[in-house]
Amino acid sequence: MSAAVKQHWTEIVKEKKIRQAAAIPKEWILTNLPPKDVLNVIDFPEKSGLLSEKEIEITNAEVGTLLHNLSSGAWSAVEVTTAFSKRAIIAHQLVNCLTEIFIERALARAAHLDEHLKTTGKVVGPLHGLPISLKDQVNIEGLESTMGYVSWIGQYATKNSALVDILEASGAVLYVKTNVPQTLMFPETFNHIFGRTLNPYNRALTSGGSSGGEGSLIALRGSPMGVGSDIGGSIRIPSAFNGLYGLRPSYGRVPYTGSVNSLEGQEAIPSVLGPISNSLGGLKSFMRSVAAQSPWLKDPMAVRKPWSEAEYHLSDHGEGKTPLCFAMLWHDEFVLPHPPVLRALERTKEALIRAGHQVIDWKPLNHLDIFMNAITIWTAAATEDYRTVTAPTGEPLIGSMALTAEELDQVVKVIPTDPPTFPPAIEGVSAYELWRAHKKRRELRQAHMDHWNATVSQTGIGRPVDAIISPCAPYTAPPHGFNTNASYTGIWNALDYTALVIPTGLFVDPVIDVKKPAHSFFSEIDKSTYELYDPEIFKYAPITIQLIGRTLEEEAVIAMGEVVDAALKASTSL
Amino acid sequence: MSAAVKQHWTEIVKEKKIRQAAAIPKEWILTNLPPKDVLNVIDFPEKSGLLSEKEIEITNAEVGTLLHNLSSGAWSAVEVTTAFSKRAIIAHQLVNCLTEIFIERALARAAHLDEHLKTTGKVVGPLHGLPISLKDQVNIEGLESTMGYVSWIGQYATKNSALVDILEASGAVLYVKTNVPQTLMFPETFNHIFGRTLNPYNRALTSGGSSGGEGSLIALRGSPMGVGSDIGGSIRIPSAFNGLYGLRPSYGRVPYTGSVNSLEGQEAIPSVLGPISNSLGGLKSFMRSVAAQSPWLKDPMAVRKPWSEAEYHLSDHGEGKTPLCFAMLWHDEFVLPHPPVLRALERTKEALIRAGHQVIDWKPLNHLDIFMNAITIWTAAATEDYRTVTAPTGEPLIGSMALTAEELDQVVKVIPTDPPTFPPAIEGVSAYELWRAHKKRRELRQAHMDHWNATVSQTGIGRPVDAIISPCAPYTAPPHGFNTNASYTGIWNALDYTALVIPTGLFVDPVIDVKKPAHSFFSEIDKSTYELYDPEIFKYAPITIQLIGRTLEEEAVIAMGEVVDAALKASTSL
Repeated sequence: MSAAVKQHWTEIVKEKKIRQAAAIPKEWILTNLPPKDVLNVIDFPEKSGLLSEKEIEITNAEVGTLLHNLSSGAWSAVEVTTAFSKRAIIAHQLVNCLTEIFIERALARAAHLDEHLKTTGKVVGPLHGLPISLKDQVNIEGLESTMGYVSWIGQYATKNSALVDILEASGAVLYVKTNVPQTLMFPETFNHIFGRTLNPYNRALTSGGSSGGEGSLIALRGSPMGVGSDIGGSIRIPSAFNGLYGLRPSYGRVPYTGSVNSLEGQEAIPSVLGPISNSLGGLKSFMRSVAAQSPWLKDPMAVRKPWSEAEYHLSDHGEGKTPLCFAMLWHDEFVLPHPPVLRALERTKEALIRAGHQVIDWKPLNHLDIFMNAITIWTAAATEDYRTVTAPTGEPLIGSMALTAEELDQVVKVIPTDPPTFPPAIEGVSAYELWRAHKKRRELRQAHMDHWNATVSQTGIGRPVDAIISPCAPYTAPPHGFNTNASYTGIWNALDYTALVIPTGLFVDPVIDVKKPAHSFFSEIDKSTYELYDPEIFKYAPITIQLIGRTLEEEAVIAMGEVVDAALKASTSL
Repeated sequence: MSAAVKQHWTEIVKEKKIRQAAAIPKEWILTNLPPKDVLNVIDFPEKSGLLSEKEIEITNAEVGTLLHNLSSGAWSAVEVTTAFSKRAIIAHQLVNCLTEIFIERALARAAHLDEHLKTTGKVVGPLHGLPISLKDQVNIEGLESTMGYVSWIGQYATKNSALVDILEASGAVLYVKTNVPQTLMFPETFNHIFGRTLNPYNRALTSGGSSGGEGSLIALRGSPMGVGSDIGGSIRIPSAFNGLYGLRPSYGRVPYTGSVNSLEGQEAIPSVLGPISNSLGGLKSFMRSVAAQSPWLKDPMAVRKPWSEAEYHLSDHGEGKTPLCFAMLWHDEFVLPHPPVLRALERTKEALIRAGHQVIDWKPLNHLDIFMNAITIWTAAATEDYRTVTAPTGEPLIGSMALTAEELDQVVKVIPTDPPTFPPAIEGVSAYELWRAHKKRRELRQAHMDHWNATVSQTGIGRPVDAIISPCAPYTAPPHGFNTNASYTGIWNALDYTALVIPTGLFVDPVIDVKKPAHSFFSEIDKSTYELYDPEIFKYAPITIQLIGRTLEEEAVIAMGEVVDAALKASTSL
């Protein structure tokens, strides 16, 4: 845009939306879409009529199966990419999850991979032929990464992010990018360019955020695995609300360089990239493949730590020869979770005990202090950051994830009141105040580490608790605009603990998950959270738990996640 | 001090100095000390008459020999501790290097270790019986860590720092702490409590800083190994100026928690702890022993990275089967080093080529930008930090390391002019400006990493340059007050590269190291650095080099350091 008359930001959006629509193959546009008051659309893709039997088989397969069939040549990369592309476009029409769509480019790449396998007999890498979706902020050469900012429309990446180079070197096929909230600093997904992403289990509920496009796309199996980012829960909240596996790795375990972001230069509690998938095996393949490419030689902020097979075999946790000891965080002494969340924790406890493991209670320490300190750090100069970014077009800063008047044609509103808006812009603090906050955070981390270490006296296994099991949020997916509290995820970012979301296989059921009598409230937010709950409104939402290990313990957390997952699956099948 | 009338800060200092003097065993106070105009006192301890033949043998031994004889019982911990304690007190009387002195406590600990070895036949740990000196800031329960701040006198640590716990668990004996500059943010060593530390090779020259007490103590063999800290060169400058081996590990490799510090909360280019010793083997023992105690379970900022024997065997550098390729940084395009420094680089190059390795030139990239960005980050709120700390007593903030009028009775002044003073206190910046500086630094790190990776096209060994060899400073130890430029060390802190100082065995020799004709100056500082050089003034100073590897590559840097060290020793003996 070099026009002398400045274009209004809404005009820039219109042009961008036209380009987005043009990227969708016309023959995949559906005329049989369910009306907006059909809330649960999770099964629609298979019934849409657009997918062949084989495409349904492919897209329902887990990452392990896909990789096996791709490397053996049983399924070609082109047919796998085609299947997921089609299903992604179906998903997009149901829940509005995509931003950049580049299927032609992906199919050319897939054809190249097929050719390579055919001529050499070898795969390009451990992710050969696997379609992987990316959160909008992950740069791919030649494509935009608007991150929901109108001001960034038309900025085409001049090179790949390090992670894209690594995924392509591992054989992956990139084909779509996914929706986010403006600024990335909301736990829901809505912006002025692409609008709102809905939850496929109940479209009156949020998909979560900020990786909400990934969450709903993967839940609808429009992608077998995606990359999200997480500064306070942005991988885990969409994983939790959409019933998926999602890993928040520790700072620097997955290379971030070359992707765009908010709050750049805020390095005390940084955002991290990590995988979301329908299977735990997918997360493991992702983490191993990334580490195998020595990301620390590509990104100066990446940690020199190769994948450790010993740590995956629980070298620091009894090597699988003794039972594990899990500690259950029932609530954080700030907000009591809703009945479905507590039911999932109970179920997990029973399942683990049945599987021969130990489960003790976790005593929460300083959760509110830790979370408030994190907010102080994140907001120290956030307003200046947002203002600088939005200044070129004058696009408004979004202050709430509430449904807009324009959206009511498209989305069912299930709660008559509006959610609270975020407080108005906070002016920035001084560098000295920021340093004080950093220092306080270090002290809080130290106290929490000491607290964890001290559990050695309670476990009876000669070592402290192996992992914590916690809610992912005080609720399952809430109605649009009502996900205003990320304290159950943000605390682990502030402590830099490895955190994994695991679906329990359970869903909110109004018959089982009845509202409880009011308890003695911890806080005003506890009271409003309690009042929010109505099983009819929250119905169909998946229920998940969070497994927390120590810093840079991705291998052991995945391995312990397998233990928990197996116990839950055994329990569900009883 | 609960007196109603506030004590003047100089009175507080007097009381502290009396307590320090009382900690020195009377029978070790010498009456035959050389007068102040005897500049080179490096040989004095052996001639002092205070040490027995065996004590001289013990204190001249390298760490490897000490550990061997201690673990075999050939030398008792008590006799080794006694020998180093005596020699430390001699050193202190020559160069004023100590702060806290706690020899009785050390001897009790040593006796306990001897008893343990005698009764169990086993060592307590890999550092059994080894005396280790600590920079003043490292907290030991029951002792002060004033860090040269009058306001911190009388603050006794209520618990050990994590590193002290680790060293004691490894069997070390702690016996003295060492001098620093007020604020730690000077590359020399002078404060209002303990005064100035001198260079034992030439007492008219600085010992460097901020770990200057360690540097001169270890050079005089009053300690076989010490712990320093390094935010911009504070381990390496004293190592360089005193002819020692010193390692700046990467951020978080050695646990910092529980030690006091300046600029707390400044985490973008943080200070790190690391070892200084008379031998490279000492540094290796230190790093292995620390890693063996899983510091990441004690300090939340410590990196989960066990010692890697594979990396020590150069798994990322040809596994010792191919020649290494070193790149020589002759100068940083900002300040040309003095003739002795360039002579040492030439010698190192020849020695490595003779040993069968490759040496190419390193093209400096953005040195001034990187260093100025680091200064922006360090000073963002430094003034507020210093003012807060010094407020209780009103002690003046030190603005220059120039010799004071009071010191001229004790110290020879070899340059008639005074050195430049540091600029007056800078007011702090906003958190947003600090974030911008962090972002710029990340970009500079990325560019430097890309630059390093690109050397793969020049080495001919199929991998980029294995390590960089660089000056440690543009000069050998300069006269007191004239060490005003830490750019040759600070750049590696900003890039978080592992950096090792290696003595070349060479010393400034007025006959060889003649002043060169003026060159075309890069900068005003280059000009004043050139003008500063006079071989008569710099004589006797040790000459050292710096070996730089990548982030978290401590194992490989030590191993490559052994290669360089062996080549230099072979070359010196020719």
